Amino acid sequence: MQLRIPGPTPCPEEVLQAQTRQMINHRGKEFGDLLQRVTGQLKRCFQTEGDVLILTASGTGAMEAAVVNTLSPSDRVLSVSVGVFGDRFADIAEQFGAEVKRLRFENGSAADPDTVRRTIKAESPFKAMLVTHNETSTGLTNDLASLSAVAKEFDLLLLVDGISSVGSIDLPVDRWQCDVVVTASQKGWMTPPGLAMVSVSQKAWKAHEQAKMPRFYWDFGKAKRFLEEKSETPWTPAVSTFYALGVALNMVERETLPNIFARHARVAKAARDGVKSLGLSIFPDEAFASNTITAVRAPEKGDVKELLRILREEHKVVLAGGQRELDGKIFRIGHLGLVTEADMAEVMSALKTTLPRVAA
Amino acid sequence: MQLRIPGPTPCPEEVLQAQTRQMINHRGKEFGDLLQRVTGQLKRCFQTEGDVLILTASGTGAMEAAVVNTLSPSDRVLSVSVGVFGDRFADIAEQFGAEVKRLRFENGSAADPDTVRRTIKAESPFKAMLVTHNETSTGLTNDLASLSAVAKEFDLLLLVDGISSVGSIDLPVDRWQCDVVVTASQKGWMTPPGLAMVSVSQKAWKAHEQAKMPRFYWDFGKAKRFLEEKSETPWTPAVSTFYALGVALNMVERETLPNIFARHARVAKAARDGVKSLGLSIFPDEAFASNTITAVRAPEKGDVKELLRILREEHKVVLAGGQRELDGKIFRIGHLGLVTEADMAEVMSALKTTLPRVAA
Repeated sequence: MQLRIPGPTPCPEEVLQAQTRQMINHRGKEFGDLLQRVTGQLKRCFQTEGDVLILTASGTGAMEAAVVNTLSPSDRVLSVSVGVFGDRFADIAEQFGAEVKRLRFENGSAADPDTVRRTIKAESPFKAMLVTHNETSTGLTNDLASLSAVAKEFDLLLLVDGISSVGSIDLPVDRWQCDVVVTASQKGWMTPPGLAMVSVSQKAWKAHEQAKMPRFYWDFGKAKRFLEEKSETPWTPAVSTFYALGVALNMVERETLPNIFARHARVAKAARDGVKSLGLSIFPDEAFASNTITAVRAPEKGDVKELLRILREEHKVVLAGGQRELDGKIFRIGHLGLVTEADMAEVMSALKTTLPRVAA
Repeated sequence: MQLRIPGPTPCPEEVLQAQTRQMINHRGKEFGDLLQRVTGQLKRCFQTEGDVLILTASGTGAMEAAVVNTLSPSDRVLSVSVGVFGDRFADIAEQFGAEVKRLRFENGSAADPDTVRRTIKAESPFKAMLVTHNETSTGLTNDLASLSAVAKEFDLLLLVDGISSVGSIDLPVDRWQCDVVVTASQKGWMTPPGLAMVSVSQKAWKAHEQAKMPRFYWDFGKAKRFLEEKSETPWTPAVSTFYALGVALNMVERETLPNIFARHARVAKAARDGVKSLGLSIFPDEAFASNTITAVRAPEKGDVKELLRILREEHKVVLAGGQRELDGKIFRIGHLGLVTEADMAEVMSALKTTLPRVAA
């Protein structure tokens, strides 16, 4: 099967096998050693000297954690959104009482740093900026370095959804001064879903001291204290998923981050070149097309749902449709984690056979 | 190894193996079928016609979910606590702005229904009562049927921590009129940690309509809508843990609930008889001693930490110490999920050898 959705992504056999290990005491030395080792490896992947914490949750839970650990109700927050997941980040902040100014770029367009700067100037002061690094719903990677530079001109706290980018697309957390960056195990990490990982900067810790949004399960302070003082997590962790992540991170280290980024870039190029050679077009502004997911405009003739059904049922190629207003208008090819050019060739071959059938 | 802590508990080999299955689309039919099947099985285990929802989180997350889905800030809540986990439930409600009256019974004592009734009468009105069915920190099972009857005399919403009881100790959710009951996969369910399960009554849904505590990831309404309309979870679920839970629940159905409850009762009696025959005494009021965990007073001579160390290192028997003020004063033998009298015999044999050494 070619599971080519933006997550869960396929796991290497040795990662799946790691989960057959029997349970251990999550408050014992063996788990503590694993937690510390994995945390250290993640810090290198996040390219940070700051803290990395691991939560038992999916990515949305960690987005909520990023918000409630650093903000207070009625804090003014700038949401820079280019799609469904950017909107979700804003929804979470609003739900917890932040006053959210929504700067929404059109689907398929990247966030424009100059527009962001003008908005901040016009509507200052803001406490924080929420931004998506890689927007899965439109297949686009924002220019986070430039967006961060704007946020930092105004000394804003920068909360980043890096769920489908960290570990697959270069995101140097410290160099780009990101205060909280969120990712999740089922994305580029080649691990089943169930764990979310967050980096926390010094500035984020200062915000944490003042932040008044209610939190218990998500509390970063408790997670840091347990990690440092006892090599534990405050609440029972997803032990099997930790076993899996431990093996996957060893594979990441063997391949090295630069090689992983380069592989994702090559595979993404193969995906874009492939669909274009079949007469299809890339949905987002191609200058910002993502290296982890390719969003493709629906063929002019034929139903995209029927296309995905045939691919899935007859070719075992599982792609994703569009979300919300993009439903029926695009389809998406996930290519993150365990993926090579050979996988993309299989996807293109199945597409090539199927496209004429739905156009007929 | 005898992993005899109150969770994670040992998993059957076929449950561990289930996790080696490759990832699938969590928004596809195959996962939807699994989700619906597992939800139906859980409803039978909860003995409810109401809703059961599955969250990707550990038990504490589901306790938070129970609170934020049914209450509003400044709601008056009665916390009936007999230990660490009862206190935690109260802490969560307080953290989210509820006005919490704490009725705390002494460690080792069960909650007394008459005292609860007097407290409610004296300090009415309350919106909800928080109570622990099985208190893991003291090895005690509350008389939930009687406590529920008191709550219902006053028409209170009843939120129950059944984390270490549901599926192992009889907890007929509908008959005892429990409005939200929480459990987690790593307890009696013989499954790795990472999923939490909650039942939601009609009264809880009415409370949900009014409840103003902020929530996003935990929202029961969204979970119910996704389950019913799409056979999906709102956020990416812990797919491997679902595979495992699916196999474990088939084993539960084969053994049947009455047989499982009876086995836990027999094993618990073996644990209590065993430690008493070694000259030790049961920590809690024995009339309320738990069928999933036995808390034992530390031997008069010798250090309990040293006892646990030798058991662990030389006998591969892993027991739990006491928490907070009970640290060093008790130790705890978990016996829930995959456990038989033969396992208890091994634990007792190791204890018998080790006790004289630490007393020397």
